[in-house]
Amino acid sequence: MDTVERHRHYRSASQVTIFAHLFGILSIILMLVWLLHYRGGMNLDSDNAYRVFNVHPFLMFFGFIFMAGEAMMAYKIVRADHEVQKFVHMFFHLAAIVLGIVGLHATFKYHDMSGFKDMTSFHSWIGMGTFCLFILQFLYGFSMFMLPRTSMETRARSLVWHVSGGRALLYMAICAAETGLMQKVTFLRLPYENEHHLVNFLALAILLFGVSVDISVGIGRHI
Amino acid sequence: MDTVERHRHYRSASQVTIFAHLFGILSIILMLVWLLHYRGGMNLDSDNAYRVFNVHPFLMFFGFIFMAGEAMMAYKIVRADHEVQKFVHMFFHLAAIVLGIVGLHATFKYHDMSGFKDMTSFHSWIGMGTFCLFILQFLYGFSMFMLPRTSMETRARSLVWHVSGGRALLYMAICAAETGLMQKVTFLRLPYENEHHLVNFLALAILLFGVSVDISVGIGRHI
Repeated sequence: MDTVERHRHYRSASQVTIFAHLFGILSIILMLVWLLHYRGGMNLDSDNAYRVFNVHPFLMFFGFIFMAGEAMMAYKIVRADHEVQKFVHMFFHLAAIVLGIVGLHATFKYHDMSGFKDMTSFHSWIGMGTFCLFILQFLYGFSMFMLPRTSMETRARSLVWHVSGGRALLYMAICAAETGLMQKVTFLRLPYENEHHLVNFLALAILLFGVSVDISVGIGRHI
Repeated sequence: MDTVERHRHYRSASQVTIFAHLFGILSIILMLVWLLHYRGGMNLDSDNAYRVFNVHPFLMFFGFIFMAGEAMMAYKIVRADHEVQKFVHMFFHLAAIVLGIVGLHATFKYHDMSGFKDMTSFHSWIGMGTFCLFILQFLYGFSMFMLPRTSMETRARSLVWHVSGGRALLYMAICAAETGLMQKVTFLRLPYENEHHLVNFLALAILLFGVSVDISVGIGRHI
């Protein structure tokens, strides 16, 4: 691939990140409208179990998926040295882990308050599996690419797996989000009115966030 | 990347396709046990609306997602000329479209028989959106890579988008499958017993099929 072609793909990848930001921000707005207007708000310390639960979808998207997606695009959106880009990539993933843990805590607390069993749905299986693998991927990435002890050859060899594994984890996290929303909307037996439409658009925006992050990484990999 | 490294990645990609086949076949088996043993079987011409519906999940996985996934791996699993690999890639995608149309017909027929409104859930939005984009991607791929009129430069330039778009579509199709299963399992309010466990493992197997196909393509792209 010649230099013009590489430049063209790099520009395309950067343009796709703009869609990713837009779908990400749209998802956050729709999520907030849904939780604050239709679902009674969110509060981790509330006596109302539903308000405790509502922290879960918000933090799993805004805290975990959005942060991780932005981290994946750091090499396209941060105009700085490679070392700075790497640090931003690592830092946003770390933030995703911390906020994700609070988000997971919220749903376990809700189950406790409501007397529900934990980990029964495949939403919970996919979500928990993804989160655990995500932490392993973070530790692997940190030891391989942040610590100075690994050689450039080893890094180059691991990069293919790090990138493919990261893209697969994003895709698993989006599946977890979509199944979570579907579980909630079907469990509530929402009539096909305003709230139902809102959640449909929220699910679509989250999916398109994942697609745009994935494509921006895919296009960029050919540089 | 040197020749040894390329060879190593090609071998890894081929090994990942084995997992993809296994998860794909496991999904088909679990799906059949679910539909035939727990859900009363499937028959497109039945007077029983549920048996008509059951054709939908089976064909959307076996007919659409499994066929398309196998097609995506054709360049790794078919040991033949590039032209033969391309033909297999195209042919399995065509089969996916034909079987997918029958699978979609089944759910519309079920809605008609049961008096349900069409296209209300975001499962249906994601599924229909994915299927329509899949047909466009097929037509684009066919005209770009099968017809002799396009130059090698144009093909090379389009390939990046064709591959990234195809991977994104696989991932959207998996999301459609997962949300469909979640909708069904939550709507039925299945107790946390055998059938519930079976569907959980089915959802997990389908997800891991998608992940392995995606990773085998991702690893292979670096060759």
